[in-house]
Amino acid sequence: MTDTPSPIHAGDRLARMRETAPLVHNITNDVSMNFLANVLLAVGASPAMVQANEEVGEFAALADALAINIGTITAPQATAMETAVDAARSADTPWVLDPVALGATAYRRELGSRLVELGPAVIRGNASEILTLAGAHAAGRGVDTGDTVTAAETGADALARHTGAVVAVTGPEDYVTNGVRALRIANGHAMMPRVTAMGCALTGVVAAFVAAGGMPLEDTAAALAGFAVAGEHAGERAAGPGSFAVHFIDALYTLDPATLDAGAHIRADRPRG
Amino acid sequence: MTDTPSPIHAGDRLARMRETAPLVHNITNDVSMNFLANVLLAVGASPAMVQANEEVGEFAALADALAINIGTITAPQATAMETAVDAARSADTPWVLDPVALGATAYRRELGSRLVELGPAVIRGNASEILTLAGAHAAGRGVDTGDTVTAAETGADALARHTGAVVAVTGPEDYVTNGVRALRIANGHAMMPRVTAMGCALTGVVAAFVAAGGMPLEDTAAALAGFAVAGEHAGERAAGPGSFAVHFIDALYTLDPATLDAGAHIRADRPRG
Amino acid sequence: MTDTPSPIHAGDRLARMRETAPLVHNITNDVSMNFLANVLLAVGASPAMVQANEEVGEFAALADALAINIGTITAPQATAMETAVDAARSADTPWVLDPVALGATAYRRELGSRLVELGPAVIRGNASEILTLAGAHAAGRGVDTGDTVTAAETGADALARHTGAVVAVTGPEDYVTNGVRALRIANGHAMMPRVTAMGCALTGVVAAFVAAGGMPLEDTAAALAGFAVAGEHAGERAAGPGSFAVHFIDALYTLDPATLDAGAHIRADRPRG
Repeated sequence: MTDTPSPIHAGDRLARMRETAPLVHNITNDVSMNFLANVLLAVGASPAMVQANEEVGEFAALADALAINIGTITAPQATAMETAVDAARSADTPWVLDPVALGATAYRRELGSRLVELGPAVIRGNASEILTLAGAHAAGRGVDTGDTVTAAETGADALARHTGAVVAVTGPEDYVTNGVRALRIANGHAMMPRVTAMGCALTGVVAAFVAAGGMPLEDTAAALAGFAVAGEHAGERAAGPGSFAVHFIDALYTLDPATLDAGAHIRADRPRG
Repeated sequence: MTDTPSPIHAGDRLARMRETAPLVHNITNDVSMNFLANVLLAVGASPAMVQANEEVGEFAALADALAINIGTITAPQATAMETAVDAARSADTPWVLDPVALGATAYRRELGSRLVELGPAVIRGNASEILTLAGAHAAGRGVDTGDTVTAAETGADALARHTGAVVAVTGPEDYVTNGVRALRIANGHAMMPRVTAMGCALTGVVAAFVAAGGMPLEDTAAALAGFAVAGEHAGERAAGPGSFAVHFIDALYTLDPATLDAGAHIRADRPRG
Repeated sequence: MTDTPSPIHAGDRLARMRETAPLVHNITNDVSMNFLANVLLAVGASPAMVQANEEVGEFAALADALAINIGTITAPQATAMETAVDAARSADTPWVLDPVALGATAYRRELGSRLVELGPAVIRGNASEILTLAGAHAAGRGVDTGDTVTAAETGADALARHTGAVVAVTGPEDYVTNGVRALRIANGHAMMPRVTAMGCALTGVVAAFVAAGGMPLEDTAAALAGFAVAGEHAGERAAGPGSFAVHFIDALYTLDPATLDAGAHIRADRPRG
């Protein structure tokens, strides 16, 4: 992509995450649970799915990070999410929001509006989801985006400034911003959107990387780069999305920091607006 | 099987389905969600799992088809299913019913009886499930059938006439009927029943094919043929049901219309009774 | 390991289980459902996941074994578990308890305390979970153990004597005890803990083996040995945890009794205390 040296060392951040093997508490959708857990184990984190309102607060307080995903939301799960987020905030534990298919229904938009005000460390979504959160009219219909990453950049910057969160818009090229600085990651493989729960799993990986705290923009970019480089490795061997998913888990597991640094295409950019 | 030309062009129907990439709304069981979503993505449709009663109506109205599967039914999910079906009917969106393990409990039989009266475009089940819906005594115990497809044909025809739905009885040879005309599909692989959620995933694929509307008998038969031919391709490479599932997703993804037409064994038949 | 002849014939027990293809009713967590069902199908059992309180009693009474796993417990699911256990007891159907992450929250500890008094045939957990159930202070944090199998043996023996259950502590070497006799199984592969839901799937396999009733200590040990030997076979071919999971399902499916007997390292031991 460029000969400019990478603005961040993704490999170092991967190595540091693995050393601590952060316990990531996920309240997520039923489609992604198994794949997300396997992705987190493969990358070197420790996943846990705990969702009863009676215990999510206690568990969120002892976890290293919390990931919230509204993909197959139900009313009891929404209540548990707010309980868990409150406990995470009290314990100073970073939490990450994945606003799946946010624009699809009024129920989702309202829940998203409430959650986004509760101080996520990172918001990760596709372009349509980020545009909806940012208040712009978005084109997504189901869980897939109807908008390009580029179209969502201004909205992402504004959302980051409004919420204080790092906002990651993922797609063929990812855009990550804290409203002041921005990074672009140009990695990945065309088969990734043909495997379900890829975005959800990525959100969990972002949570694992930001668990250490302190540099959420850089940690998010490193997570996105690691995920996308593993996708490239998987793509070299896959015969279709079934074998892609298998190779992808293997690639995350075998990804070493030096290979990540050699393969990552990360560059700094200026936020808009 | 036969030198008679196929009564339908399954390949054309696959190509048409892929062109529109229908948004299929699934309210399904927790076992199948991930596999079903991956199957729908691989075959070329766009899956979404939305299940809260607060939003299923809104979502079902914007989807292109709705698939209902009672495999791990709970009371809130049953309520959401009826809400979603009502909305689909109002929007003239076809919906498909998968009456998993219908005969196992009184609760399931009652729910199935209610749902079947709500005008599904297609009912897809194994022989025991269709016999139970048709009111005959059936031999299934868990989720597996205890009856042969042949034994369920008369019941399937009667059920089709009573409900106005296309009824698909799937097994080693599939039987699809609208009560007036019937089709048989003689494809598939012996390892398919050894992979969980294969039937549930097939129901989702049927929903994708009938999304366009108009010819549910032919579209259902094309969906069944495409699914079963992909199973044959997977069976050529599999060392067991684990690798079978992986190759199956790849085979659905790479299946082209001409290969489907060359491999599909579909023949017309007369309904019974 | 040893030249002493194995105290049990695991292969015979695998063959007998396959002949009956027991219907295993699972009320389990959302992470493991699909993998558990595929594992049970691969090993030769018939899995069913039925979880509504309205029907679990009726279903548990007709199943051959019941497996209870609290991994992603919710209040309605806890109620359904108790209903199902009551029905299984009335029908003299063996049931197996998997106390996932028992020590993590007060809610889990209370539920575990209630369930353990309801007469499980087998309790299967990692060292931290068994220590928590046994009332000792345990070191597990999320779903992973913080204790060694050896540290949990005395607690396991005491728990077996208190409850009348067979207690299986699984880890690099498994320890199975009924409080009077104990068996050790030294098989398995280092990649097994890197695949999510491996323990949950093992619990389902234990339920399949004890379905026949009569010798729960030996049947549990045979289930553990079969699972772990399949893990060794998978480990020979895997490039990471993604391909491990696929090969593992294939290995369970192709595992024959003679190969199991040749590979199983089972030895008798004396309980502690």
